[in-house]
Amino acid sequence: MRGVVMYAPGDVRVEDVEEPTILAPTDAIIALSATCICGSDLWPYRGADDVDEPFHMGHEYVGIVEEIGDAVRTIEPGQFVVGSFFASDNTCEICRAGYQTSCVNREVLGTTGRAQAQRMRVPLADGTLVATPGIPSDDLVPSLLAASDVLGTGWFGAVAAEAGPGKTVAVVGDGAVGLMAILAAKEPGAERIIAMSRHGSRQRLAREFGATDVVEERGAAGVARIKELTGGLGAHSVVEAVGTQESTMQAIASTRPGGHVGYVGVLHGVELRGDDVFMTHVHLHGGPAPVRRFLPELIDLIWTRKINPGRVFDLELPIDRAAEGYRAMDERTAIKVLLRP
Amino acid sequence: MRGVVMYAPGDVRVEDVEEPTILAPTDAIIALSATCICGSDLWPYRGADDVDEPFHMGHEYVGIVEEIGDAVRTIEPGQFVVGSFFASDNTCEICRAGYQTSCVNREVLGTTGRAQAQRMRVPLADGTLVATPGIPSDDLVPSLLAASDVLGTGWFGAVAAEAGPGKTVAVVGDGAVGLMAILAAKEPGAERIIAMSRHGSRQRLAREFGATDVVEERGAAGVARIKELTGGLGAHSVVEAVGTQESTMQAIASTRPGGHVGYVGVLHGVELRGDDVFMTHVHLHGGPAPVRRFLPELIDLIWTRKINPGRVFDLELPIDRAAEGYRAMDERTAIKVLLRP
Repeated sequence: MRGVVMYAPGDVRVEDVEEPTILAPTDAIIALSATCICGSDLWPYRGADDVDEPFHMGHEYVGIVEEIGDAVRTIEPGQFVVGSFFASDNTCEICRAGYQTSCVNREVLGTTGRAQAQRMRVPLADGTLVATPGIPSDDLVPSLLAASDVLGTGWFGAVAAEAGPGKTVAVVGDGAVGLMAILAAKEPGAERIIAMSRHGSRQRLAREFGATDVVEERGAAGVARIKELTGGLGAHSVVEAVGTQESTMQAIASTRPGGHVGYVGVLHGVELRGDDVFMTHVHLHGGPAPVRRFLPELIDLIWTRKINPGRVFDLELPIDRAAEGYRAMDERTAIKVLLRP
Repeated sequence: MRGVVMYAPGDVRVEDVEEPTILAPTDAIIALSATCICGSDLWPYRGADDVDEPFHMGHEYVGIVEEIGDAVRTIEPGQFVVGSFFASDNTCEICRAGYQTSCVNREVLGTTGRAQAQRMRVPLADGTLVATPGIPSDDLVPSLLAASDVLGTGWFGAVAAEAGPGKTVAVVGDGAVGLMAILAAKEPGAERIIAMSRHGSRQRLAREFGATDVVEERGAAGVARIKELTGGLGAHSVVEAVGTQESTMQAIASTRPGGHVGYVGVLHGVELRGDDVFMTHVHLHGGPAPVRRFLPELIDLIWTRKINPGRVFDLELPIDRAAEGYRAMDERTAIKVLLRP
């Protein structure tokens, strides 16, 4: 079968890779209907993470179950399923508290999760996969695929930031996760949603997803604009969807005392000075999004066409042209690239 | 009148200082019934904070109102009052959200708040002071004084850590604030309260305040013990009441994924690595405790003798012997020293 392999920064190839097989009785094999390229795949692509040996990329996936291990109880061949980028048992105390990405038995799929392929093995199938009510029509597939990571991650950002009725929510970052966080803040009824973005096409999509204001400034100037828009106090809720030192400090400084920062951008090399954070009185929460917690709700919202997160994919390619997709995301000519296996 | 002045690290003198006067129409002058020495007063005493010029110490106080400014409406001469170490208007949006220490009109009393004296000026009296139901009997005065800072701070730590029924709460730090956090965790019904302490007398007081377990180990060994006591997961709620790099990392690592760290130790020179924090899935919240939020509830609990936080004072001195008090706290022969003006 065909799969996407990264050989070195900037060097992505599509080639014949090994077919997945059931390794543990809790595994499932799915035939992918769609997969995609993640912002986090760009860290090794850009050389910010090491590529010691070629690895098979991908961790976002939807598809049809082909085969299950002997211990799988709730998932059946023929079902259309959505899963998360961390496999979880969904039964341990941590999972039951809603933190499936910290499951005591978790298996990280992550960058090297082998989802950019025609078929893949999903561990802990019962706890990781959620079946849709039936086989979706084609136009729902991109939205269901978004639920597998980018929507679930933006959703967690908004939940961690306690976005809700009467609140002003600011979103730092106009990548796919930031855009999804806007949609996630609109859903529970945030009063005002400020997108921090300086790209026309992303601003338009931000407004389509529910942004009421756009702030183009960054850093201290961006913080000053957020303060101006909020009576000098800062936003109630801020989602950090980038993960750099500047964006993290911008998020914290844009939040009013007692407000909430939800961080879902992987914090690469960020250092928080305790003395500074102490005086801000903000709440900080985030991490790898426990997408599994939100999947039933997200699938329902998509299935009933209340939300259309699939709009975030602005380029679709057959998997054999994956290298083009990486280039487009790296150069920011595409927000997010869907690959058809 | 007599007041406590710090001239240099280790050099505390009691001398005649200027009488306070009404400076703004929102001020009140109170005659102190009791004041005390704070753990934070030890930072300059030990040379960790600069002492550029002699300053008049103190920020914890209870007493009788002697005089009020023309704009004061709710506080009257003759009332016994408890106040906080940050003055606040208690009417701005931030105060109404419960973050009076970030009030838009706040005035920081802090280390140089002039409360270690016979009389003091309290700014923003209406928003800062809370009157007790009457003049308290002598035995209630230490507990009411504790409410002014150390109890309110421990209380905020427990609230920020979301201590509550069914939860396991760990407290890092066995100083006065840590001990008060134990009492604060017991009040809403935490199931298990683990005091991290290696001093016999403090362990005894911790148990008296509600600790069910004591862990003597620190750092990685301390974390391992907490994990052992919690089925490998970590505590639901951890209060950080020290403020060093080691204690902060110990608190974060002792918390289970999805759990809450409440930090009330002033984070001196602490650096949090974003990559580490990101993966922990903990909630972080804290800062200078908005004691004013809790004062009505705390006064009621003390007045009705449901809690006895005054037990934390294990040395009482006339104010003229304040230097002895500083020495005792520095050498940890006393937990907290009450001064009688």
